[in-house]
Amino acid sequence: MYDLFLLRFLTLFFYSGTDIPMVKTLYFSKNGLYVLEQRLLPGTTTYVRCATHKDVYRAIKDMSVRGAPAIGVAAAYGVALAAGEKHFRTAAQAKVFLLSAISFLSSSRPTAVNLFWALKRMGTVLEKEYASPVLLQKALLKEAHAVYAEDIRINRAMGEYGARLIKKGSGILTHCNAGALATAGYGTALGVIRSAHRQGKVKRVYVDETRPYLQGARLTAWEMAQEKIPHVLITDNMAGHFMKTGVIDAVIVGADRVAANGDTANKIGTYSLAVLAKYHRIPLFVAAPTSTIDRDTPTGSHIVIEERSTEEVVYIGKKCIAPAGTKALHPAFDVTPAKLISAIITEHGIVRPVNARTIAAVKLQKR
Amino acid sequence: MYDLFLLRFLTLFFYSGTDIPMVKTLYFSKNGLYVLEQRLLPGTTTYVRCATHKDVYRAIKDMSVRGAPAIGVAAAYGVALAAGEKHFRTAAQAKVFLLSAISFLSSSRPTAVNLFWALKRMGTVLEKEYASPVLLQKALLKEAHAVYAEDIRINRAMGEYGARLIKKGSGILTHCNAGALATAGYGTALGVIRSAHRQGKVKRVYVDETRPYLQGARLTAWEMAQEKIPHVLITDNMAGHFMKTGVIDAVIVGADRVAANGDTANKIGTYSLAVLAKYHRIPLFVAAPTSTIDRDTPTGSHIVIEERSTEEVVYIGKKCIAPAGTKALHPAFDVTPAKLISAIITEHGIVRPVNARTIAAVKLQKR
Repeated sequence: MYDLFLLRFLTLFFYSGTDIPMVKTLYFSKNGLYVLEQRLLPGTTTYVRCATHKDVYRAIKDMSVRGAPAIGVAAAYGVALAAGEKHFRTAAQAKVFLLSAISFLSSSRPTAVNLFWALKRMGTVLEKEYASPVLLQKALLKEAHAVYAEDIRINRAMGEYGARLIKKGSGILTHCNAGALATAGYGTALGVIRSAHRQGKVKRVYVDETRPYLQGARLTAWEMAQEKIPHVLITDNMAGHFMKTGVIDAVIVGADRVAANGDTANKIGTYSLAVLAKYHRIPLFVAAPTSTIDRDTPTGSHIVIEERSTEEVVYIGKKCIAPAGTKALHPAFDVTPAKLISAIITEHGIVRPVNARTIAAVKLQKR
Repeated sequence: MYDLFLLRFLTLFFYSGTDIPMVKTLYFSKNGLYVLEQRLLPGTTTYVRCATHKDVYRAIKDMSVRGAPAIGVAAAYGVALAAGEKHFRTAAQAKVFLLSAISFLSSSRPTAVNLFWALKRMGTVLEKEYASPVLLQKALLKEAHAVYAEDIRINRAMGEYGARLIKKGSGILTHCNAGALATAGYGTALGVIRSAHRQGKVKRVYVDETRPYLQGARLTAWEMAQEKIPHVLITDNMAGHFMKTGVIDAVIVGADRVAANGDTANKIGTYSLAVLAKYHRIPLFVAAPTSTIDRDTPTGSHIVIEERSTEEVVYIGKKCIAPAGTKALHPAFDVTPAKLISAIITEHGIVRPVNARTIAAVKLQKR
């Protein structure tokens, strides 16, 4: 127990290769995958232990871990965990179980494509021959670790490219949490903000609280505070007002899926921001690793939008904010058409303009 | 105590002259002005007793009573209460005190012009000659009752005019609460929805929850449920998404102040809705009694926007939704330029298009 406590303490913060300590969104140990319980942030910092792939499924579905890249990494580890869940006599026998585990994990959430990307990548590991189930398990864990490590490296690259788009003295609006907490570390949209901040370009970050889950208020404000990046919280409905008053110079968001024509699914509210930004001639940038690009989905209208429960809208914590029995709608995402996106920031560079041709030209991450 | 309870019980609901019972936003009795404590709705239905004009000031400032027309009515009663707060020897002596009470009440909230309109109207009563302080007090109470009664009549007239703008089978988006609870009764924007619903035109009302005070979730959803008008709650950031999917045919909101050129201040988030509606070619209607028109304010940029506290954004009930110390911005209103407003619905008819010329032509309510 003490060892576990010490382990948690030591791994809670790690140095990100620069001067900034970052909280770990998830980490793997011999006891399983530990994911930061993001539903309790910022009040409580605790980790959920996932000993099996079904635990990982639950952590993704219930949003203990959230954010497209982080979901992908968690799912990759879920497959590695599955390989150790039973005693398999042969690698072939293990593969049968692992394929069902991959299928199960893929049903956890429908919109973020990184989940399917990561599972496909783990599936590729299964295609090779292994002399024993143990060797297969080792290969899977190695691949999951690679997905994890690449994610941080990719985020850093996006940060560098994205920061070039930011002018000195910028007010930046961001929505939801596309930060270290949505990835293995550093973040996509917040990675760009981090890099731009280090270059002294960020005047102030306007953090959309992002109802109903309040990822902006709970997670993004927390990340900004950790690194002393000047920021202020606003309710989602204030975005237009502050664009009009001229304090917003750019909007940066993450992405859950980019269709072949550049239409992009992201947290509900992104589309409204995109229309508002267009009206005010403010650029809207999407920070997305190429693993978020899904060329098998032709346009945004083909993206499945997850519908979540009424309760998640009507309850804030344990407090019911509406009359008993009130029905609410809860699409977790919306789709922003390519024409409203000024540029997509990837780990390989900037995609601009955003359309079927430029998306087709992007070199994709290993899959 | 029992009498008071009975009084409350009897006056909580009154018949609105049709088949629909409506809750009373405020009522006057010999014990003072009772205002429905709207901060506790929908969980608790209780009235705050205002025995003095300072109590009324507090009820307005702290938003126990809110909504531009309701604030005006409450302030009018506040002046009537002030007339009975001291023993005056002459009407002239009373007037000195009453002028200071009017000045004090006018400092309760800055944006909604109905407050100033009602206080000016009460001030006009002071301009006449009275043989005794008691006669002055009676005249003030009579005028406050007139403001109250007129408000309901005006809302009904707006409802009838506004309903003509609504097509059969409409999905209607509304923001904040411009309902019976924001007025002496019936409501402005919700008055239009009520009338349109009676004419069988309303398919469904999309209720913006309206952060940070959640007037939509708490109050509008409650009013809609009372009258069985089909409705669904959405978070503010979903508005664009549902406009895009085609289920919204009209947006109807109230107003806190209409400038001489038609620019309109209303609850924060209205401006974003107006831009979104314009983009999607959906009409945005403002329901506003002519007492909301302020010809002394040339344009929207001259309207003082109330800045409220960080705490009202960061706390939902007693729950803090952001890391300790997080700063938030909280403009309580924003300004929608006239060009984004399809029509203003008044008690005298429809103002369309909305511009300086058409606003100048509106016959104003007695002041």
